[in-house]
Amino acid sequence: MSYRPPVRDYAFLLRDVLELERYANLPAFADASMDTVDQIIEEAARFTGEVLAPLNSVGDTEGCRWSPDFTVATPTGFKDAYDQLVAGGWPALGADPAYGGQGLPYVVSLAFSEMSSAANMAFSMYPGLTHGAYSAILAGGDQAQKDLYLPKLASFQWGGTMNLTEPHCGTDLGLLRTKAVPQGDGSYKISGQKIWISGGEQDLTENIVHLVLARIEGAPAGTRGISLFIVPKFIPDADGNPGQRNAVKCLGLEEKMGIHGNATCVISHEEATGWLIGEENRGLTIMFVMMNEARLGVGMQGIAQAEAAYQAAATFARERLQGRSLTGPKNPDGPADPIIVHPDVRRMLMDSRAIIEGGRAFLFWTALHGDLAQASPDEAVRQKGHDYMALMTPVLKGFLTDRGFSVCSDAMQVHGGAGYTEHLPVSQYLRDVRIALIYEGTNGVQALDLVGRKLAADGGRGVTTFFAEFDAFVADNQADEALKPFTEGLARGKAELQEATLWLMQNGIANPDNAGAASTDYMHLFGLVALAYMWGLMAKAAQAKIAAGATDAIYQEKLSVGRYYMARVLPETAGRLAKLKAGADTLMALPAEAF
Amino acid sequence: MSYRPPVRDYAFLLRDVLELERYANLPAFADASMDTVDQIIEEAARFTGEVLAPLNSVGDTEGCRWSPDFTVATPTGFKDAYDQLVAGGWPALGADPAYGGQGLPYVVSLAFSEMSSAANMAFSMYPGLTHGAYSAILAGGDQAQKDLYLPKLASFQWGGTMNLTEPHCGTDLGLLRTKAVPQGDGSYKISGQKIWISGGEQDLTENIVHLVLARIEGAPAGTRGISLFIVPKFIPDADGNPGQRNAVKCLGLEEKMGIHGNATCVISHEEATGWLIGEENRGLTIMFVMMNEARLGVGMQGIAQAEAAYQAAATFARERLQGRSLTGPKNPDGPADPIIVHPDVRRMLMDSRAIIEGGRAFLFWTALHGDLAQASPDEAVRQKGHDYMALMTPVLKGFLTDRGFSVCSDAMQVHGGAGYTEHLPVSQYLRDVRIALIYEGTNGVQALDLVGRKLAADGGRGVTTFFAEFDAFVADNQADEALKPFTEGLARGKAELQEATLWLMQNGIANPDNAGAASTDYMHLFGLVALAYMWGLMAKAAQAKIAAGATDAIYQEKLSVGRYYMARVLPETAGRLAKLKAGADTLMALPAEAF
Repeated sequence: MSYRPPVRDYAFLLRDVLELERYANLPAFADASMDTVDQIIEEAARFTGEVLAPLNSVGDTEGCRWSPDFTVATPTGFKDAYDQLVAGGWPALGADPAYGGQGLPYVVSLAFSEMSSAANMAFSMYPGLTHGAYSAILAGGDQAQKDLYLPKLASFQWGGTMNLTEPHCGTDLGLLRTKAVPQGDGSYKISGQKIWISGGEQDLTENIVHLVLARIEGAPAGTRGISLFIVPKFIPDADGNPGQRNAVKCLGLEEKMGIHGNATCVISHEEATGWLIGEENRGLTIMFVMMNEARLGVGMQGIAQAEAAYQAAATFARERLQGRSLTGPKNPDGPADPIIVHPDVRRMLMDSRAIIEGGRAFLFWTALHGDLAQASPDEAVRQKGHDYMALMTPVLKGFLTDRGFSVCSDAMQVHGGAGYTEHLPVSQYLRDVRIALIYEGTNGVQALDLVGRKLAADGGRGVTTFFAEFDAFVADNQADEALKPFTEGLARGKAELQEATLWLMQNGIANPDNAGAASTDYMHLFGLVALAYMWGLMAKAAQAKIAAGATDAIYQEKLSVGRYYMARVLPETAGRLAKLKAGADTLMALPAEAF
Repeated sequence: MSYRPPVRDYAFLLRDVLELERYANLPAFADASMDTVDQIIEEAARFTGEVLAPLNSVGDTEGCRWSPDFTVATPTGFKDAYDQLVAGGWPALGADPAYGGQGLPYVVSLAFSEMSSAANMAFSMYPGLTHGAYSAILAGGDQAQKDLYLPKLASFQWGGTMNLTEPHCGTDLGLLRTKAVPQGDGSYKISGQKIWISGGEQDLTENIVHLVLARIEGAPAGTRGISLFIVPKFIPDADGNPGQRNAVKCLGLEEKMGIHGNATCVISHEEATGWLIGEENRGLTIMFVMMNEARLGVGMQGIAQAEAAYQAAATFARERLQGRSLTGPKNPDGPADPIIVHPDVRRMLMDSRAIIEGGRAFLFWTALHGDLAQASPDEAVRQKGHDYMALMTPVLKGFLTDRGFSVCSDAMQVHGGAGYTEHLPVSQYLRDVRIALIYEGTNGVQALDLVGRKLAADGGRGVTTFFAEFDAFVADNQADEALKPFTEGLARGKAELQEATLWLMQNGIANPDNAGAASTDYMHLFGLVALAYMWGLMAKAAQAKIAAGATDAIYQEKLSVGRYYMARVLPETAGRLAKLKAGADTLMALPAEAF
C-alpha cells in the first residue's frame, strides 16, 4: 500500500515528451544523458520509497516537540534520514558546481523533489526551504556571502528558512515591523517576531540560516522599505564553522491540521546579528526569487500528494470486494467484485490520473523552460523561458494545489469509511496537502498575480506566445485522426481561454473588481486548457511511439487517460467562462456589514 | 468568533417562504404557531450556542477514551451537556406524543438539529443516532417493543445505535456474516463483529439500544436474508429498567480525521441476546427507514458545518486588515483594508452563502413535504410528499455534503495560514464535515440511488412533478421584472436538467455503465437546479415582503445572494451536462490492472 515512485512516468516525460536529449549541447544538460537521468531516478526512487516514505506516518503521529530551552526535536528517524540525504549527495543535484553542486537541469532535480514530497511532505520541506535560501543568496548575495553560505546550503549541511510573516502581516508584507539597526561594522541588529517559519528550529543541521525581511531604521513605509538579511543561528567563525549563538530563538510551535513532522515555528529576533543581502530596501525583489521557485515547488507538492493518495486509492479499489458490476459480475468466483468495476469509482481514479499526469507534464514542461531560460545560447529561447516561468508559476501553484486537494479528497472517498480513519495513509495526505493551497501566497493571491501582473507583462508577450503554440499544435496535427480528440478539445479550450482573456482586458481595466472577481475562475480555465495542451503533447508522443512499434502499455494508457481528460475534465471550462463573464456586480453587491 | 445560530434565517424560511401557518389545520402543525416556533428556535439557539458550541473544540482535542474494561469516556463536559439536553425536553420535539414526544413538525425539529450539529457535530451525533433507532422501532417494532423502548429513546434517556458495517462489508450489506440463532423463547443469540458504530459505547446514557443487522441461521444468502434485531446493552427488567448486562461490548475506538468527540466503536456481539424487529429477512426495509431519515440528517450536517465555518470566515474577513481594495482604500485611516474588500475573498463568502442558504431552504422545503406526507388529509399531497422525500434524499445527502465540504475548505482559505492551525475552529469544521461525504452511504452510492432507483420510481412521477413545479414557477413569475434573473436562470437550468434526464433514460438502459458514469455529475446538476428553484422561491417571498413595505435588511440580502447564485454558481451546470453526456466509454477504457 505504500508509495511507489512513478519512475516509468518520469522516463516517458523526459525521454518521449520533452526529449531531453535534444539539449545535450547545453551546459546543464551535458552531464544529463538519459542513461544518467534514469539511473538518478532509480536511485532516488529507492531512497524516497524506502527511507522517507516509511517515516511519513511517524512524523504525522509524533509531530515535533518544542522544549523550554528553545530547541525542537523532529520525529523519530528524521535525523537519520536527513543524514542519509546529505550523505547520498541528493541536495547537490541541481546546485551550482561552483558551490559543490552537480549542476543538473532543474527538470531532473524536480523528479527527485516530487518523489521526496510524495514520500514525506513534512520531511522534504526542510531541504526544500534550504534550497530556497540557497537560491536567494545565489541571486542576491555578494561573493563573500556566497562563498561562506552556499556550499553549506548546497550540501544541506546547514538548513535555511524564510522569515516573512508576522502576526499582523502575511500577504501584505508592506505592513511588516521587524526592524534592523545598522551597527557600523556592516552588520545589523534585527528585532521582531516572525510566525509560521517552517523549519525555523530543528535538530537536523548544525546551523540554520534564516533569511529575514526587516525594515532598516528610517526606511520608507510600505513595501519599498523592506530589506533582506541573513541571520544565522550560529554566527560563522573565521573558518566558516558555526560559532557564537545568535539572539534568534524559537518561542514555540504551531499546532496544525497536517505536516506535523515539519516544525512551524514562532521565531523571535532579539537584537539578532544579521547581514544585508543585496541593496537596502530591495529585499522583496530577492525574496521573490526564492518565492517563485518555492511556488513552483508548492504546485509540485499538490501533484506529489495527489500521486501518493491516488496510488493508495487505486490499490484499495482493485482489492476491496463490494457489490457487483452493473454490467454483470467481473469476479464471479468471489463474494463480490472489486469496487474498481463501478463507474463512479473509476471516475474518481480517472479524474485523478488525468490531473496528476497532466499536471506533472505541465510542471516538467515549465521547469524545462526554466532551464532553457538559463542555459540556452539563443536569446529568443531564453526570453520565452523567462516569460513562461513567470506566466505559469501562479497557475502551477494555484491550479495544481486546488486540484491536488480534490484528488486527495477523492482518494479518501474511494476508501469509504476506512479512508476517514487514521489507520490508512489517505487522511494524512489530505491534511498535509491542504497547506499547499495557502502558503507561499494563497491561491487567491496566485490568481490575482496571474490576471493582474503576469498576463499583461511585456504587452502580453508570454500569453500570446503560449496561444500561438496551441494554434501551431492544432494546425500541425489536425489531419491526424488519432489525435482528433486532442486537437479539437484544445482548439475549443483555447477559444474559451482567449475569450476570457479578451473579456478581462476589456472589463478589468474599467473596473479592477472585475479582474479580481474573475481571477480564480480564470486561473482554473487557464490551467484546464494548459493541461489540454499537455495531453495533446503526450498523446502525440505516445502515438509516435506506437506507430514506431513500441508495445509498452504506457503509450495506450496515455492515449486513454488523455481522451478521458478531453471528454470528461476539460468541459468544466464552459462554466468557468460563464461565471467570470458575469463580472463583479452581483459579487460586490452586499455591504461588508451584511456578512 | 463562536457560532451564532441563524435564527433570522429560520424565521424567514418558515414564515415567509414555507408559510407554515398555512398548515395550522393539520395535527402536527396545530401546536406549532409561528410564535411557538420562534420561541422554540430562540431557546434552541441559546442552548446550542451557549452549552454545545463551547464544548466543540474540547471534544476535538480530548476525543473519547476507551478502557480495558470495555467502557468509553466521552470528552469533559459532554455528560453534563447531555443531561441538560434531556432535562430541557429537546429530544422530544419531534417524537410521537404517544411515547412522550411533543409531536412538532419535522421541519421545526430540523432547525434544532441543524443548530446542534453546527454547534457540536460530534456531540449531536449521539442524540441523532438515538432518534434513528427510535424511528426504526416506531416503523417496524411490535407494540410491546414500542412501549418498552420508544419512551426511553424519545426522551434520550437511553441511547441508540445502528450496527450495520462489518470489516468486509459496508456498502454491500449482502455480504454480512453476523448471525442470529433463535432460542425458542422469542429471543435470539447474536454473534459477530461490527465496526464504525457511532456511539456504540459511551457514558452519557443509562442504557444503549443497538439495532443490529444479522442473518438468522439458514436464511438466504445476500440481502434477502438479513434481519434486524434489538440488542440492548442492559436487558430491560420487568419494570423496563436496565437489568442484566448483555454480551455486547466495545473492543476499541477508531482514530479518525475528525468528529473526535463521537465514539466510533468496534462492537463485538458474543452470543448477545436480541429480539427480532418486524419480519424475518426483512431487516433492510426497516433499516432503510432509519437510513433515509439519517441521510437527510447528514445533508443537514453538511450545511450546518458550512454555516459555522462561513461565520468564522466572515468574521475573520471583516476584521483582518491586509492589503488595499483594488478600487481605492476602504479603510483609509487604518494600516490596511479588511480583506473582505478583495473580490476573491468576497467570492468565497458569497459562494458559501449561496450554497448554505439555498441548501438550507432545500432541506426545510423537503422536510415540510415529509411532514405533509404524514399529516395531510389530501391523498395527492401525501403522495407528492412521499415522492419528494424519496427523490430528494440522495441529492440532499450527496450534493449538500460535497458542497458543505467545499464551503469549509473555502472558509479555511479565507483565513489564510491561521486557518490551517488548530487555534482557530475552521480546521475542525473541515475535518469533521468530511465524514458526511462518506457515512450513511457514500456520495457515490447516493448518486447511484438517484439515477438508478429514484428517478425511475413510479414511472418517474416524482421528477415529472418537480419539473412541472419549475415550469409553473417560471410561467407565474416571468412577467415580474424583479424576478427575471430567477425565472430565466431556472428555465435554463431546468432545460439542462431535462436534457440530462432524457440522456440518462436513453443511454443508461442500453449500457448501465453510462448511468453509473453520469451519476455524480447528474446529482450535482440536479442539486444546482433544485437550489435555483429554492432561490426563486426565496426571491419571490423577499420581493413580496419588500413590496409590502418591509424594511428588514434580510429581504434585500436574499435578492442579492440569489442573483449571485444565478450569475455565478448555477453556470456550473453546463460543464456537468457536457461531462455526463460524454458517456462511459473513455471512463471504462482502461483495464483494472492499469490502475
